[in-house]
Amino acid sequence: MKYENIKDTMNALREFQFKQAAIRHAMGVLEYDGETVAPKDSADGRARTMGYLSELSYKMTTDPELFELVYSLDGRKDELDTEEKRMVEIIKKDCDLMTKIPMEEYVQFSELCSKAGNVWKEAKNTSDFALFAPYLEKIVEFDKKLAAYINPEMKPYNALLDMYEDGLTMDTLDAFFGKLRTGIVPLIEAISKKPQLDDSFTKTNFPIPAQREMSLEVMKTMGLNMDRIILGEVEHPFTTGFNLCDERITTHFHEDDMLSNLFSVLHEGGHAIYDMGSKPEYDYTVLCGGYAMSIHESQSRFYENIIGRSKAFAGPLLEICRKYFPLQFEGVTAEMFWKAANKAQPSLIRTEADELTYSLHVMVRYEIEKMLIGGTLQVKDVPETWNRLYKEYLGVDVPDDRQGCLQDSHWSGGSLGYFPSYALGSAYGAQFLSIMEKDVPDMWEKVAGGDLSPVTGWLHDKIHVYGSLYKPGELMDQICGGFDPQYYIDYLTKKYTELYEL
Amino acid sequence: MKYENIKDTMNALREFQFKQAAIRHAMGVLEYDGETVAPKDSADGRARTMGYLSELSYKMTTDPELFELVYSLDGRKDELDTEEKRMVEIIKKDCDLMTKIPMEEYVQFSELCSKAGNVWKEAKNTSDFALFAPYLEKIVEFDKKLAAYINPEMKPYNALLDMYEDGLTMDTLDAFFGKLRTGIVPLIEAISKKPQLDDSFTKTNFPIPAQREMSLEVMKTMGLNMDRIILGEVEHPFTTGFNLCDERITTHFHEDDMLSNLFSVLHEGGHAIYDMGSKPEYDYTVLCGGYAMSIHESQSRFYENIIGRSKAFAGPLLEICRKYFPLQFEGVTAEMFWKAANKAQPSLIRTEADELTYSLHVMVRYEIEKMLIGGTLQVKDVPETWNRLYKEYLGVDVPDDRQGCLQDSHWSGGSLGYFPSYALGSAYGAQFLSIMEKDVPDMWEKVAGGDLSPVTGWLHDKIHVYGSLYKPGELMDQICGGFDPQYYIDYLTKKYTELYEL
Repeated sequence: MKYENIKDTMNALREFQFKQAAIRHAMGVLEYDGETVAPKDSADGRARTMGYLSELSYKMTTDPELFELVYSLDGRKDELDTEEKRMVEIIKKDCDLMTKIPMEEYVQFSELCSKAGNVWKEAKNTSDFALFAPYLEKIVEFDKKLAAYINPEMKPYNALLDMYEDGLTMDTLDAFFGKLRTGIVPLIEAISKKPQLDDSFTKTNFPIPAQREMSLEVMKTMGLNMDRIILGEVEHPFTTGFNLCDERITTHFHEDDMLSNLFSVLHEGGHAIYDMGSKPEYDYTVLCGGYAMSIHESQSRFYENIIGRSKAFAGPLLEICRKYFPLQFEGVTAEMFWKAANKAQPSLIRTEADELTYSLHVMVRYEIEKMLIGGTLQVKDVPETWNRLYKEYLGVDVPDDRQGCLQDSHWSGGSLGYFPSYALGSAYGAQFLSIMEKDVPDMWEKVAGGDLSPVTGWLHDKIHVYGSLYKPGELMDQICGGFDPQYYIDYLTKKYTELYEL
Repeated sequence: MKYENIKDTMNALREFQFKQAAIRHAMGVLEYDGETVAPKDSADGRARTMGYLSELSYKMTTDPELFELVYSLDGRKDELDTEEKRMVEIIKKDCDLMTKIPMEEYVQFSELCSKAGNVWKEAKNTSDFALFAPYLEKIVEFDKKLAAYINPEMKPYNALLDMYEDGLTMDTLDAFFGKLRTGIVPLIEAISKKPQLDDSFTKTNFPIPAQREMSLEVMKTMGLNMDRIILGEVEHPFTTGFNLCDERITTHFHEDDMLSNLFSVLHEGGHAIYDMGSKPEYDYTVLCGGYAMSIHESQSRFYENIIGRSKAFAGPLLEICRKYFPLQFEGVTAEMFWKAANKAQPSLIRTEADELTYSLHVMVRYEIEKMLIGGTLQVKDVPETWNRLYKEYLGVDVPDDRQGCLQDSHWSGGSLGYFPSYALGSAYGAQFLSIMEKDVPDMWEKVAGGDLSPVTGWLHDKIHVYGSLYKPGELMDQICGGFDPQYYIDYLTKKYTELYEL
């Protein structure tokens, strides 16, 4: 035994986490730079360097010495504190996975996904599902095998779900989506019979330099530490962070649609606040930043929708917008602004969907993944099923696969079982709100005054500060006494009933 | 022997070069990002990650397997082509150095320089040389030891010079600087008796967004491939490149001084054209990009001064400026613009010096380094000597060490012997020009028409394309039949005689 002392062993594990964080930092900056400023022709060179760094990282995660370290610590769990135990648990989950999957299959799969990503792009551009189908077939086959490697006792799709969200099962999701559908579909139908909300005044002309300044003020209002975060411009907005003092959010400015950037900044800013809120001593460890995508989405959507699109915050938000666009917002009231921000309309593209219909987009993907992994749907029949479900849930006709089953990149990356997190996040957020309203009775008053500190403070103390210490289920139990999607349905019903005077 | 076949051995060496290039790429992007956009508080985290990547790179360069590879190839040189031979030679130079310096001394020195850099910054800010002196003493001591390790047969300062510029000696430099001084000092005196040139119209108000657009047009005019390069904004401009398709130049915009950015872009653009001009097959090898700083400076100063500040190019350059600042340049003629760009005035700061007096700044540093390493000057006496030489060569009184011997970072980084390259570069450029004028008789006509392609074409074919294949001395022999500083003196005399009507 190389490390006699448990303290030395933990230090060695911390050292491994630091090295992993350093490589991730380098790759993250390369990617951020690539998306924001790098020269047009730099992609190939960047891919080569990223490939080499991935190889370094992979070698580290498959180093027998690491395995020895982790399993020896796992065997002495009783001597570790809660945080150390959790570090070991998280790293061990990855080690277990590496142990269970034969190396050559893992490498083959990585190569397959890399190729599939390129093919998917072309298939999407040309709206040609047949081009992508053979790759998706192989990916589904691998994911089935993967599920069996992870846990042969579990139903395959449950094993995949569990990989992204510990303990999540089809039973939970069927109940969740079932309730959602029952709750949301009638709302959508009722709205379709009402006059549509007016958002035309948000679609005039909004010069980008002023939108940029406005976005920074929104970030400040959210409570982000502006010495530790920057706002970049990209095609498809995302958030990335390298350590607690270096976070990046991105946005895309549309001159003729000012809400797009505004809510993008609130959304990505929500991810950033979560990332940057971990206990300082978690920096450079696996405990830093959010663990599960569902909780991450619960935070980003909290700022984007629950606060950002609330009636209370419409006033302060309009005042910020008016400061940068006084002419464009002449005569606009907070009520008008609130309504414009909440226009609901079933549409084709998930990433552009409104708060009400968003979960139905996710539901379509969930149903299809479940059938693909369960063996009741063949890849070739995906487009037909997709289009049928969109008609059924959202009432829209899908004109082509580009705007249909080829719109998202996730499947080409091999990630089946990941989509449900998005919908769960929204539902978690509504349930958090119900507790927050009890804990901070004057929260909406403060929000209406433009003060988000009670909101951010509550989220910080209950969620952000813990980083990855707790699993999503544990967090939900601690904060809300368990997950209950009814809060989400009630939240949506109340909000849209008022908005559309149903 | 691990690699029987010489082709496999060379391939292994190429693989090593690729890995080094990938690490350099990652570190380069981290640095560029840090200087241009990163959040204010991100420096510590970046330093940690850079430290880890340096460690990886250092491990690679000191890997016994690399040494075996390099020395085995060096023993079979006859079987290699010219380019392979040069690769081996360049890498072997580093390996030799690593072999000659005891590891623990190397590590101590790295740590010393890292500390010295921080102390130098503070000393500069507070203009307190005594704070920095103990570090400079240790650095001088180490550099003396280093010189003895490199080549105990050589005079110590010669050994250091040779490290930065193969074959460069004090004899060459004494003759070079002697001639320069004799040629330039009388010119400066003559100018001081003449009325000063007027540059006031370049110091009105020039909004930065328009300067930014103008800079991109200048870059295009230089012939830079705009799909492979970007322009960033920083405090102190620099150039960095990661591969042939990803180059970055930087600038600093002053609203009240438009020439500063303009010539900064021409200077850094010159570095970039050189970097990006290597044969494509050199990419990811040590042959890619310029080898010695003297040749690099010869290119940057060629675009900045020889072309950028030429009478012929004043017309086209003014037209570009006028396009973005029509009001500011109303009534300005090409002649006026040319004169404004060439105002010569002895000053205190090297990096802000004009073309005429620049070399004298370098000469002061050369004299001091020579004495420090030669043991005829003690560190404590550096400020006094510095101030005396500035008075003697440039006729200026140094008010404090911040604007005197503490102005440059080089010594704190351990680099004694590096400064002379800057002055050599300018002189090389003037000699290149004499040949270019013969090879391309209508070059000035073309330049006056705004067409730099004959200039860039000549530099590309004679210099850029070879990357690091030739040493500076070899290049000078091939192109000019040997180095002769008289061309530089003649160039300056002719130019300033005309400018100031001497």
